[in-house]
Parts: sequence; C-alpha cells; structure tokens
Amino acid sequence: MSELISQPRIAFQGERGAFSEEAAVALLGEGIKLVPRPSFEALFSAVSEGIADHALAPLENSLVGSIGRAYDLLVESGLQIEAEVVIPIAHQLIGCRGAAVESIKVVESHPVALSQCERFFAAHPHIVRVAADDTAASVRRVIERRDLRHAAIAGMRAARTYEGTILAEHLEDDPENYTRFALLTAAASPHASERADKLTLAIRLSHQPGALHRALDPFARRGIDLLKIESRPVKGHPWEYRIYLDLQASTNDGGTKDALGELRERATEVRLLGCYPSARNAHRELEA
Amino acid sequence: MSELISQPRIAFQGERGAFSEEAAVALLGEGIKLVPRPSFEALFSAVSEGIADHALAPLENSLVGSIGRAYDLLVESGLQIEAEVVIPIAHQLIGCRGAAVESIKVVESHPVALSQCERFFAAHPHIVRVAADDTAASVRRVIERRDLRHAAIAGMRAARTYEGTILAEHLEDDPENYTRFALLTAAASPHASERADKLTLAIRLSHQPGALHRALDPFARRGIDLLKIESRPVKGHPWEYRIYLDLQASTNDGGTKDALGELRERATEVRLLGCYPSARNAHRELEA
Repeated sequence: MSELISQPRIAFQGERGAFSEEAAVALLGEGIKLVPRPSFEALFSAVSEGIADHALAPLENSLVGSIGRAYDLLVESGLQIEAEVVIPIAHQLIGCRGAAVESIKVVESHPVALSQCERFFAAHPHIVRVAADDTAASVRRVIERRDLRHAAIAGMRAARTYEGTILAEHLEDDPENYTRFALLTAAASPHASERADKLTLAIRLSHQPGALHRALDPFARRGIDLLKIESRPVKGHPWEYRIYLDLQASTNDGGTKDALGELRERATEVRLLGCYPSARNAHRELEA
Repeated sequence: MSELISQPRIAFQGERGAFSEEAAVALLGEGIKLVPRPSFEALFSAVSEGIADHALAPLENSLVGSIGRAYDLLVESGLQIEAEVVIPIAHQLIGCRGAAVESIKVVESHPVALSQCERFFAAHPHIVRVAADDTAASVRRVIERRDLRHAAIAGMRAARTYEGTILAEHLEDDPENYTRFALLTAAASPHASERADKLTLAIRLSHQPGALHRALDPFARRGIDLLKIESRPVKGHPWEYRIYLDLQASTNDGGTKDALGELRERATEVRLLGCYPSARNAHRELEA
C-alpha cells in the first residue's frame, strides 16, 4: 500500500458526504483523494478503469444484513480485500439554516435510512417521507432548494459537506447500527500483511449430502473460527449457491495453508478474496 | 388445509396483479380470496390480525438472492411454512391501448425489475426509467394515466388485471429468473404432511470454532441433503447471526427426528419453521 503515502485515490459509492466517505476517512485519514461513483457497478470497475487505486465497498450492515450485490461484484471484479473498517451509522435530521423540526413537512432519504427512524416518524405523523437514491444527495438537494419545510436524513459528514443545519440528532431507532466496509485493490499481493488475521473465501460445492460439512471440516478440526457464512445465488444456475466464508485465520499460518489445501480437494471452486487485518477491535473502540 | 375448500383468504404483498398473486394462483388455483397487503410487515401480520387464513411470502429469487426482510419476519411472526411454490419471472412491457414500443418515452417499474431489463434499455436509450414501489401498481398507474408515451414493466397477470396492452414480451435479460414463495399459516400442525420432503430450520450457535460444523454433523452423518444455508444478522447483537437451513428431509422420518434431537444439544436455539412438500419438481415442470 505504498501509494497510500502519495494521496491514494479511493472510489466509493454515493455522493460526497456519504457514509462510505466517512468510512474511507475513518480507515485511511483525510489525506486521500475521494472518487465518488454513482453505482455499485461503477464503484467496482473504478480500479480496472484506472480512475482509483482502491475501492471501498459496503459488505454488511448489522441490521439490514449482507449487501448481496457487493458480494456478487466482489467475485465478478476479481478485486481483493486488503483491509476492512466498521463505522457506526447515526442518522441526523438535516435542514437549511433557519429551519426547525417543527417547520419540517417533508423528509427525504434512502429508503433504508427512512425505515431505521420509525420512532421519529411516529412522533411526527404529519411529515411526508420521500425515498431517494442516496442519503448525502438528499442533503445536497435540501440545501440547494432552500425550503425551510424540507429536511434530509443522513450522517454528520453529509451535513458538514453541504453546510446543512442539524435539526435533530440520532434519529435511528436502534443504536446498534454498524456498517462494515472492505477496502479493495487489484493487485493480489503474494503475501498477507503480518497483521492479517481474517480470511475471506468464496467456494462452490458439488450438490451432495454433507458437502458443506466436509468443506468446513479442515477448519473445524484445526480450531479455526468461522466468523460469517453467506450464500449468494449463482446466475444461470437456479438454486445453486456460491458460499462466502469469513474465517479468523491468516495464510501466513501453516495450519491455515493446510486447511485451504484440504478444502480445494473438497470444493469445486475455491477463491481467496483476501487475507487482511480484521476490524473487530476497531469496532470495539468505536463502541467505547 | 380444510379451509382451502371454502375459498381461503390468501394475503400477499403488493397490489392486485402482482407476481405474488400469480404465485398464489399457481399454488392454490383461482378459487381463493386474494388479500393484497401494502408492505411485508402488513403481509406477515395479516394472519394474526384475522384478515387472512394464509400469507404467501417471497423468500428468494434465483438472481437477486434471499429476501432478508422476509426471513426476519418469518421468525418474528411465528408463522409456519406449509407449502412452497416457484414461478418464472417474465417481464412484459405494458402500455395503453394504441401505444407501441416506438411511442414510449417513460417506463415505470420496481427497481429490481428495471435492472433485469438492461438489454431493452440499451436498445432504447431515449427511454427514461422511473422507479416505483410495485410492478403491478406501475401498470395500474400507466393505464389510469392514458398517456401513450408511458409504459410499465410487470408480469402478464398485471397486464390482464388492469387491461393493459402488451407492447413487448420477455424483456428480462436472464431467462433463468425464478422466485420461490412460502405459504405461511398460524397453526403449527403437530404432524407434517405425508408428502413433506423439505424442512426449514432457524438456528443460533454459540460463538466457538467449529460450531456450525458440529451443528451440520447430525444431518451429514445421516446423508441428509442441505439444500440452502442463509444467515441473517441478529438485531441488537452486531456480527451475530441466525442461520436458516433448508434440508431435504421430513420430520415423519425417524432419522431426521434423531438428527434434530442431536442438533438441539449443539445449538443455543433451534426453531422448526416448517416441514412441507418441496416445489423442486414443480419448478422442473414450469421450466419444461
């Protein structure tokens, strides 16, 4: 990651001020060049197009679950995970200068953000909700419109980016709301970082009774912890799945290498999507 | 299912003519009373509210993957799966009488449906796409508006329901597009149907290396096939998961009962979500 010294270009999905931008800065600091991309497809192609050195993709939210499209594009793009970061998702009500909660008639945001603030809308039943593509873009539009009756729900960084006024803080119903992002790169380094303690694999199995049990056996036998299992449909093969495994393990370790060797004999496809330092401890720090 | 004889009331999500309605009729025939519900929450509460005898919920699409919210509500609602059905998803371009593909300027549909017709939009780059909540509702609006420049993308049943004209058939990029629905009921029958050959479980495991491997062992050892594994976050417990297992098995079988007994000793939570006849063969018939 030598280019991190010379202002690396980090692609993220959304507009300036998005939660993804917040995550990029939390992971890499403010000394990066941010490359906003309008869609997941554009995000995952940014590295191969040469317009970014890395892409930061959301993989999972602690309430909503895995972001299936990101998992699919991770395999399709051939990008590798080199780091991960977890940020808390806090929803703020953001309006124009001079606005107040009492003046707001319309609130715009991404449908998921709107659905995570049910308590606020129950307490303000006259407010109309408008679904939008992007939380940060909602703030931009509200500020451009200069209408005291309109507000957006988004993060603090979106408020700062568009100079919006925070009308109410922490609208989220559930405070245990985190999103996990993966920093992706094109170059598959032959060696994992010394600090690497997490391994992500995508596997396919033959359709036989016990196939998944046999695939997990090399890891279980060595006491390697399975942190997450995710399955995604294989396109063109209805009811067949690619299975994603997050393991507490490093390819620097001989036992893990042996387990991977055994897995390759038991699976019809094994793809190593990255071996990297986990964000589990970073997450604990953010909570405190 | 004795009430199936006296016109059972089947709740589904969406407006009349939706793909869910198509699935309900494919499973139960036209002699049912259809109860449209505006949201997943309203769908899953329809049985306990007494306004429907059964609810039909989409669980999975062969391209998009599992419908996470439906899995969460399945556990929260306490409803049981009593049957399943798979229908092919074919997207039609539907407009007013007198309209033609050449006259269309705006096409409205659910974002997933729009995204599954990329080839059509690439061939008609001047057409503006408008995202809507519901495919069937898009057809209703297009027909009400009587504007020859507007069309919707939805299924054949929506076209018939609102007397829309099919302007173009099979807009879907990928013909291998199927959605699997579960018929849900409140009464947990003590005995599975004789034709039952599929078992759905939701389990939680202690966080220990090998926990999932140990949980699958009772089934693998007996040659019981795991058809699908799905994981969903547990709310309020970031990075903990509830795991959903679809098994080719019936609780009528002694070996399956023994396996479930062993699983209960290895898991912190085991919930039987249903034992029912699988739609796998029905799916093959639909393909033919």
